[in-house]
Amino acid sequence: MPKDRLSDLIKKEVLGLTAYATETIPCPVRLDANENPFSLPQTLHEEFIGAIRGVSLNRYPEPGSSFSLAARLAEACGVERDMLMLGNGSDELIQILCASLTGSTALIPAPTFVMYRLISLNNGHKTLDAPLDSEFDLDLDAMLKQIEDHSPTLIFLGYPNNPTGNCFTGEKIEAILKKAPGLVVVDEAYGNFSGKSFLPFLKRYENLVILKSLSKIGFAALRIGFLIGRASLVRELNKVRLPYNINAISQVGVGFYLKHEAVFLEQAAEIIERREELYFAMQQIEGIYPYPSSANFIFFRCPFDTDRIYGELIQQGVLIRNFGSAVNLRNCMRVTVGKQEENEAFLDALKRIIAKGGV
Amino acid sequence: MPKDRLSDLIKKEVLGLTAYATETIPCPVRLDANENPFSLPQTLHEEFIGAIRGVSLNRYPEPGSSFSLAARLAEACGVERDMLMLGNGSDELIQILCASLTGSTALIPAPTFVMYRLISLNNGHKTLDAPLDSEFDLDLDAMLKQIEDHSPTLIFLGYPNNPTGNCFTGEKIEAILKKAPGLVVVDEAYGNFSGKSFLPFLKRYENLVILKSLSKIGFAALRIGFLIGRASLVRELNKVRLPYNINAISQVGVGFYLKHEAVFLEQAAEIIERREELYFAMQQIEGIYPYPSSANFIFFRCPFDTDRIYGELIQQGVLIRNFGSAVNLRNCMRVTVGKQEENEAFLDALKRIIAKGGV
Repeated sequence: MPKDRLSDLIKKEVLGLTAYATETIPCPVRLDANENPFSLPQTLHEEFIGAIRGVSLNRYPEPGSSFSLAARLAEACGVERDMLMLGNGSDELIQILCASLTGSTALIPAPTFVMYRLISLNNGHKTLDAPLDSEFDLDLDAMLKQIEDHSPTLIFLGYPNNPTGNCFTGEKIEAILKKAPGLVVVDEAYGNFSGKSFLPFLKRYENLVILKSLSKIGFAALRIGFLIGRASLVRELNKVRLPYNINAISQVGVGFYLKHEAVFLEQAAEIIERREELYFAMQQIEGIYPYPSSANFIFFRCPFDTDRIYGELIQQGVLIRNFGSAVNLRNCMRVTVGKQEENEAFLDALKRIIAKGGV
Repeated sequence: MPKDRLSDLIKKEVLGLTAYATETIPCPVRLDANENPFSLPQTLHEEFIGAIRGVSLNRYPEPGSSFSLAARLAEACGVERDMLMLGNGSDELIQILCASLTGSTALIPAPTFVMYRLISLNNGHKTLDAPLDSEFDLDLDAMLKQIEDHSPTLIFLGYPNNPTGNCFTGEKIEAILKKAPGLVVVDEAYGNFSGKSFLPFLKRYENLVILKSLSKIGFAALRIGFLIGRASLVRELNKVRLPYNINAISQVGVGFYLKHEAVFLEQAAEIIERREELYFAMQQIEGIYPYPSSANFIFFRCPFDTDRIYGELIQQGVLIRNFGSAVNLRNCMRVTVGKQEENEAFLDALKRIIAKGGV
């Protein structure tokens, strides 16, 4: 193969992409990745380790994302078991959706979770931005017009949306569900922190697909996402899913989560309390404008260069997410809600930096 | 969305597929899935569990398939670290390859591992069968003609091949590497049992891609595969790889494997010994024709209906793989090399069934 053939072999869409950048900056206070800051209580952690001890490492995991586990998860969600599919994180489910659908246009709010766009492009879909309004809600008229003009096969809606933290107005999502000629994916990765869900709407809208995840509630290490949609769709998606996509340990994790869901939900409740405290405290800082959040993070505007704030926070041992270089998000950052002492470390550091003022 | 829209939305290739069937028949002797039959020694198993105890379950795994782990794995393979990429099993790596390449034709020996074809089709590639010769070696002239006529973007070669168990003649693979206009994927999932590898040929052939796996050597539960190819290719494939594709526990598994590789290789050596015993014993059974194997399984022809043999083996507590319904594999079955007592249970059961004769 001559040297220059690689550019002929690789899809143009892929050649044009930059790989998704993931940060691994070591920092004592990590409030960058929307993780649950709490570990499991020691006895529960030992119970989990004990369950792993029973796994035959030399044997393949149960295929089909573990039929019995998926059934129990479906029951917990109040849906039929053939409406649910497990994925190696929601990322894989988005990938399966994009790979299964005929190439067309994916309509994607801006700003939102960057993987909707990357995975759509990698799977040969065009993408179309739907800019959010000044309160980060959907611009319904504009979106309905985009749907009319471009007939998108896929529409992705974070609920709550990442990084803005808000839930879009439910009636607007319903209007989109009614009008959309393709699938509307409502991503509830942060649903445990909003108290809201589109699950009850599955009966009403056949084109509704819901994504959920155990990553934000405490099992980020295990990569467990699940998709809920009508059975005839899930049947097709299952053909594209790789047969052993959920490893045996993560399957143990799903069972463990179902058994001890109450503990995880208690942690979520504490995170919601901490979020409200953090939001209030951030409002008190001159020049900082936090947006109301229904998630486990707070999106906020800063009075000056976020690159500097980001760097100085790291120097003070606090890692958050910087959006300053993204189009239309100048001066914006996102902080994950942490433990009380982590939030205080962040607030103290931020106050010191803001007090010094811009250059 | 009206009911009949689903068939418009889903790719025709997907609608036409049947999902990959995976069996979960409970059986005391499981010789169907090419797993390593041996568990880890108790002290090592406890060491592994201890390492998992240290994982923060609430935190995301290290992204990028763990850069430092990939580096150590690359070092163990004698290649540069930017030539290696980890996948959630080899399946995911095949998927990433297929998703990254421009749609064209994948040339695939027949018979071989079924996922090459399924994943190629799901990613919009046409597939072209290259029937193996009577000894299950590559039919080189026919393949060179197919390459000439169809310019395949991808050629998949199992080395050893599954389910036939043999390594194709190295010179034939080299002839294909020289002629192929696209990538030649040499899948060494069973390479630990053949003592052969195409790793030394990476310097010579830029279009060579090697797949490896920890599934057959003892970590099937963890889903760890890795791909080795030239750095410029791996860079592009990394754009398509989902950022957190290897969960934190599997990352622990990679590190553990590297530390204790000698133990796994000892088990592989024992499996090779058991394979030779099993092969010899099968040769002694009237009507059974086992093919020589360089893998951890033996492919064999039976004197009569394999569906009956398969069913009666299950009744006697032994599960193997039945290929009787596959085109051109009538009367063929595959048995994984197990522990000595498992192989004996299989041989005894098979002898009883054969002694009864065909209907």
